[in-house]
Amino acid sequence: MTTVAAQESPFDLADPYRALSLNTVTTKRWTLAEAADGAARAGLGAIGLWRDRVDEIGVASAAKIVADAGLRVSSLCRGGFLTGPGEAQAALDDNRRAIDDAAALGTRELVMVVGGMPDRDLAAARALVDERLALLAPYAAERGVRLALEPLHPMFCADRAVISTLGQALAMAEPYPADTVGVVVDTFHIWWDPALEERIAQAGAAGRISSYQVCDWLNPMTAEPLLSRGMMGDGVIDFAAIGGWVRAAGYRGDVEVEIFNADIWAGDGQEVIETMKRRYRDLVLPALVH
Amino acid sequence: MTTVAAQESPFDLADPYRALSLNTVTTKRWTLAEAADGAARAGLGAIGLWRDRVDEIGVASAAKIVADAGLRVSSLCRGGFLTGPGEAQAALDDNRRAIDDAAALGTRELVMVVGGMPDRDLAAARALVDERLALLAPYAAERGVRLALEPLHPMFCADRAVISTLGQALAMAEPYPADTVGVVVDTFHIWWDPALEERIAQAGAAGRISSYQVCDWLNPMTAEPLLSRGMMGDGVIDFAAIGGWVRAAGYRGDVEVEIFNADIWAGDGQEVIETMKRRYRDLVLPALVH
Repeated sequence: MTTVAAQESPFDLADPYRALSLNTVTTKRWTLAEAADGAARAGLGAIGLWRDRVDEIGVASAAKIVADAGLRVSSLCRGGFLTGPGEAQAALDDNRRAIDDAAALGTRELVMVVGGMPDRDLAAARALVDERLALLAPYAAERGVRLALEPLHPMFCADRAVISTLGQALAMAEPYPADTVGVVVDTFHIWWDPALEERIAQAGAAGRISSYQVCDWLNPMTAEPLLSRGMMGDGVIDFAAIGGWVRAAGYRGDVEVEIFNADIWAGDGQEVIETMKRRYRDLVLPALVH
Repeated sequence: MTTVAAQESPFDLADPYRALSLNTVTTKRWTLAEAADGAARAGLGAIGLWRDRVDEIGVASAAKIVADAGLRVSSLCRGGFLTGPGEAQAALDDNRRAIDDAAALGTRELVMVVGGMPDRDLAAARALVDERLALLAPYAAERGVRLALEPLHPMFCADRAVISTLGQALAMAEPYPADTVGVVVDTFHIWWDPALEERIAQAGAAGRISSYQVCDWLNPMTAEPLLSRGMMGDGVIDFAAIGGWVRAAGYRGDVEVEIFNADIWAGDGQEVIETMKRRYRDLVLPALVH
């Protein structure tokens, strides 16, 4: 997590947006420069970057734009996709570039979407993640970057990420120091987990919460599951409950809003940010304030 | 589980279809009489019934048709939907009718799809299931029917079933005798679970596996998640691995094939059954044979 100040909580009802981070995918049509400008004008404290937007202009330009806008980079998304058959070297090289980019952008957190199943052997795919994580961890540690393992919703187990629960992510992180391998708490992916409260507490106690990411679960789902994320308040997730667990776990980092949703992408970026701010202030922030 | 014979395994490569059960939803366009006839002509040992098909002709006629066809009823689907706001009495009455129907149809297993979230309070919805299960269990026990709790895939947590993992189903079953509350092992819903092997072993040791249901997880998913089930072999599920765990857990009941899939529904019923038999024999059965 990118800590706002060492001993101070970043969550303050009187200064509500200081820990709020716009993930660039939420305003998908915007370039990185437009997103940084939009976030800064809206008074947000941080931005979460996807590599596609960084690659368009190069990492040095991206870092300068974000710094000039006065924003922290809450995370870089994404490394991972480590489970491809026989593509280990290319995948590892790409992940090392992502680690370098995270360091250059000034964020400690590289979000890892680890990849799906190359065949029907799920246990083998999971073992492959373990194996390749071991190859990347020293490289990340040397550069002060943390590999933030993201459990994805089980409906993405086949095609995107064989890490399906926070407990599983924590078990995979366990062999490494807490500042080398962390976990992502993304409400969309893990809200349903009967063990969620205990796992968030465990992640906090281990110092491994790399990022708290919020968006809602729409009910009914959209036809494309990947785009079934909604603005906070538009779905079924109880941000008061989960936020309370995140607060109790001692999380003091930024809160990223990362929404894949065709309707939101079709909207005006600045209006999306204004809605996001209101929903964050009313639904997400109160539970985080000590 | 409906045991074929007390001490004997129903899984036999030389007599492969004796434990195979056609769930009526797989041949959705068929009436119960057509499904029973199709299953019997194909040499299957059992049939799994949905209540819609039973209700069309009444439970007494349904029981007679199935008995005349020489089939066991592997399960009745479904009771549940216990989480509706303020509809407790209607839901409980309907579940008592389902229990009566299961008894009249000669099956011990009533599959329970427990219902989704009436509001954003997931913990409360889960507590409501516990509470209403306690009201139904004595009624079921008196009639020799087992309430078979079915964990549904987490993508159905909001709208269909707040039981999302086998571990959670086992915890909910734990206060009751094993012949009163069981659990369903349906590959589509739980294949992704990192703890699946341990949970199946635990379910078997507790004598609580009510049903082993098989169908595949299609990748990519279909636009309607509910219809994203595929014929065994058409998706990513490793039936050898999961079947081995089910065998090791001591399961000796029927194996139901329950597929919601628009393409399969559009096909000829008898051809669907023939495909199902081949896939079962080649992909599912070998792992179950001791």
